[in-house]
Amino acid sequence: MYEVLRDQIPALKNKIYFNYGGQGPLPKSSLEAIIKSWEIIQDIGPFTNNVWTYINKEIISTKLLLSKVLGVDIKNLALSENISTGIILPLWGIKFSSTDELIISDCEHPGIVAACRELCQRNNLKFIILPLQKLKILDNKSFITEIFKYINKNTKVIIISHVLWNFGFKVPLKELRQEINRLKTVPYLIVDGAQSFGHIDINEEVLDSDVYAVTSHKWACGPEGLGAFFVSDKFINESNPTIIGWKSLKREQGIYEPFNDLYQEDARKFEIATSCIPLLSGLRQSLSLLEIDKFNEHRQSSITSLSNKLWLALDDLNSINLILNYPLNNGIVSFDIEKLTNKNILINELGKKNIWIRVVEDPKWFRVCIHQMTSTKDVNLLVDQIKVLI
Amino acid sequence: MYEVLRDQIPALKNKIYFNYGGQGPLPKSSLEAIIKSWEIIQDIGPFTNNVWTYINKEIISTKLLLSKVLGVDIKNLALSENISTGIILPLWGIKFSSTDELIISDCEHPGIVAACRELCQRNNLKFIILPLQKLKILDNKSFITEIFKYINKNTKVIIISHVLWNFGFKVPLKELRQEINRLKTVPYLIVDGAQSFGHIDINEEVLDSDVYAVTSHKWACGPEGLGAFFVSDKFINESNPTIIGWKSLKREQGIYEPFNDLYQEDARKFEIATSCIPLLSGLRQSLSLLEIDKFNEHRQSSITSLSNKLWLALDDLNSINLILNYPLNNGIVSFDIEKLTNKNILINELGKKNIWIRVVEDPKWFRVCIHQMTSTKDVNLLVDQIKVLI
Repeated sequence: MYEVLRDQIPALKNKIYFNYGGQGPLPKSSLEAIIKSWEIIQDIGPFTNNVWTYINKEIISTKLLLSKVLGVDIKNLALSENISTGIILPLWGIKFSSTDELIISDCEHPGIVAACRELCQRNNLKFIILPLQKLKILDNKSFITEIFKYINKNTKVIIISHVLWNFGFKVPLKELRQEINRLKTVPYLIVDGAQSFGHIDINEEVLDSDVYAVTSHKWACGPEGLGAFFVSDKFINESNPTIIGWKSLKREQGIYEPFNDLYQEDARKFEIATSCIPLLSGLRQSLSLLEIDKFNEHRQSSITSLSNKLWLALDDLNSINLILNYPLNNGIVSFDIEKLTNKNILINELGKKNIWIRVVEDPKWFRVCIHQMTSTKDVNLLVDQIKVLI
Repeated sequence: MYEVLRDQIPALKNKIYFNYGGQGPLPKSSLEAIIKSWEIIQDIGPFTNNVWTYINKEIISTKLLLSKVLGVDIKNLALSENISTGIILPLWGIKFSSTDELIISDCEHPGIVAACRELCQRNNLKFIILPLQKLKILDNKSFITEIFKYINKNTKVIIISHVLWNFGFKVPLKELRQEINRLKTVPYLIVDGAQSFGHIDINEEVLDSDVYAVTSHKWACGPEGLGAFFVSDKFINESNPTIIGWKSLKREQGIYEPFNDLYQEDARKFEIATSCIPLLSGLRQSLSLLEIDKFNEHRQSSITSLSNKLWLALDDLNSINLILNYPLNNGIVSFDIEKLTNKNILINELGKKNIWIRVVEDPKWFRVCIHQMTSTKDVNLLVDQIKVLI
C-alpha cells in the first residue's frame, strides 16, 4: 500500500521522513485540488452571486467529511486556521468565576501552555499542572489516578492532548469522561488532537470532549493554514465567541438594531471571517487518498507493526532510553539518548543523510513518527544511521 | 495600462467587475507564485531543518514589502488570517478599567461592531456610536467636529475605517491623530484598512494609528486567508496577546520554567501559530504586479478620473441618489435608488449581464469599486444597464 501512496507524495521522493507530527507532506493530487478550487473561484467569482453556492458547497462537504472522521454532527464543527486557535479561541469564551481552576497536563505544547497562563492571570484562575512526565508508569489507570488528585469542585477546565505530543501516550478520553461525569460540577474537557487526527481512529472518542481541535497539516497530510474543532452542545450553549467576524453572525445587522440573538446557534459562532477556501479541497483530497475517512484496520496495524519494530530495534542499543513500554499502540516512538547533551547534533547528522526526525522541547528528547507511508526500509535505514552516529 | 493587467487576471476575462472592495481577482502569476512556493516547501521540507530558512525568508520579504506600502517598520507588523482577526485580536489585549469607553463609527463592518459589543459587555465598557450616517455634509471638518462630541477623558479606544466601507469617505487620520494627541489621556486609535490597502496610498497615515489592519484579498488582489496589521510601539508595550501560539513566543519553554519575559518583543507577539506560508508569495506578486508598492500618480488619477466619470453619469439619472459629493478622491462610488425596495433585484439583473456590483448592508445601498483595471468601457456598460433596469 505504501508504495502507491509514496509515489503520489513529492516530498517523500528525496527524503526518509519521520516528522508527520510536525507537518505531513502534501500529496500532488491535493495541491492539484487546491489549484482547481482557486481557478473555479476566479472563473465564477471572486465576489459575485454565483460564487457563494460553490463556497458553501466546499465548506459543507469538508465539514461532512470531517464529521465522519470525528464521529460528530456537522453543526458542532467549526473551521479554523490552526490548532492553537481551535483550542484557545473557545477557551476565552468560557464564563469564569474567580474561584475557578484550570488543569493542564505537563505534556502540552508550549504555545497552549502560555495561552492558558495568560488566561489564568487575566481571570484570576488557579493554573494547575497535571504532572505526567514524572510518572513511573504511564498507563490508563495511572493517568486516571493521577488526574483525580488534582480535580476538585472548583475545576472548571481540563486541557489535555488525546495523544501526548512528547510521549506518544494515548489518553483514555472515554474513561476520563465517565469519571468526570460523576462529579457534581462537570469541568469542560478541552482536547488537543494535533497528534491524533489522521493518525489513529478517533471517531468514537471526540464526543467525549467539549472542545476537540485538529489540524489539516500534520498526520492528515493536508495543506497548512487550515484546522477544525468540535464544540459540544453544552459548550455552544454556555459560552460566547471572543474573536468575532461575519462568520460568527446569523446576519450582518445594522449598528442601530438591538444586539441580541445575533450569533450563529451552532459551532459557526466560533468561526471568524474570510479564510482560504481553496485549502478545503486539498484537505478532502488528502483524507480521501489516505483513507482516513474509513476505519482501516490495515492502516492501523501497518503503523503499529512498524513502530513496534523500531521500538525493538532501538531497545537493542545500549545508550537509548525508550520512553513508553512495549508494545506501542500508535506511530509515535519517543526516546532519549542521555549522553547526548546537544540533541540537535544527531538531528543534523541524520538530516545530512536525508533522514528527518525531531527533538521535542519539553522534555527534550527525540520523536519519530511512523505513518502508513513509512516502509520497513525507512525504519532499517534510521536504525542503521543511529547506530553509526551514537 | 489596464489592458496589460487585465490580460493577466483570469477572473476579469468573463465579467465586468466592480467588487474589489469585497474580493479582488487573483492574477494568474500570483497563483503560480503560490504553487511554486508549495512545491519548494515540499521539496526541501515540509518539516526539516532546511525548510525554516525558506519560511523565514518568505515571512521577512513579505513583511518588508508590506512595511514599504504601509510606511512602517517591519518590527511593528504582524501577519494574520483576515481583517477581523487583525482588529479584534489586539483589541482583547488592552488593559481596560471599568470606566473606560469605546467609540465606534456607525460605518463599520457588522462583524467588527458585534465583536466590539461583546468586548464592551464582558469588560463593562461604555459602547458609544459615532453617528456619521446622519451627517448632512461628510467632510474632514465635520468628521473631526462630530467625533469630538463623543471623546472625553474616559475614551480608551476609537475604532474607525480609513475609507468607510459604505460611503467611500476617506477619514482624515492625520488630523484625528493631531487632535487626540492634545488630550490628557490619549485613546488607542484602531483603524480598519479593508477599503484602503491596495486602493489608495496609505504610507503616510498608518503611523498615525495604534492598530491598522489590512487584508490581501480585497483591493490588493492577493489570495484570501492572509492579512497583516500594524501595531504601534505604545500598543505593543502596553497590551498583551490573547489568542497565543508558538509564534507569539520567543522560545518554546518548558511548563516548569518561570512564566515571564516569554512573548516576542515586537508585533509578532500578536501572531498565533501555523499559517499558510505559500499565500505570502501570492500577495507579494499581486502587490508588485499592480505596483502597489510604489507611489503611482497615474494609478491614483486613473482610478479617480473613472470614479468621477461614473459619478457624473449616475448623477444624470433621475432616481439615483449619490452618497458623497463630487469630486470623489478614490474609487468607491456609493449610491441609492430609493424607489427600489428590494435592492438585490438590481444586483441580480446586472449579474445576468455579467456585471457585478454589490449592496452594502448598513445602510442598504449600492457600492461600485473602480480599480486601475477598470476601463471606460466597463463604466459605460454599467451606466447603460442601470438606465435600462431602473
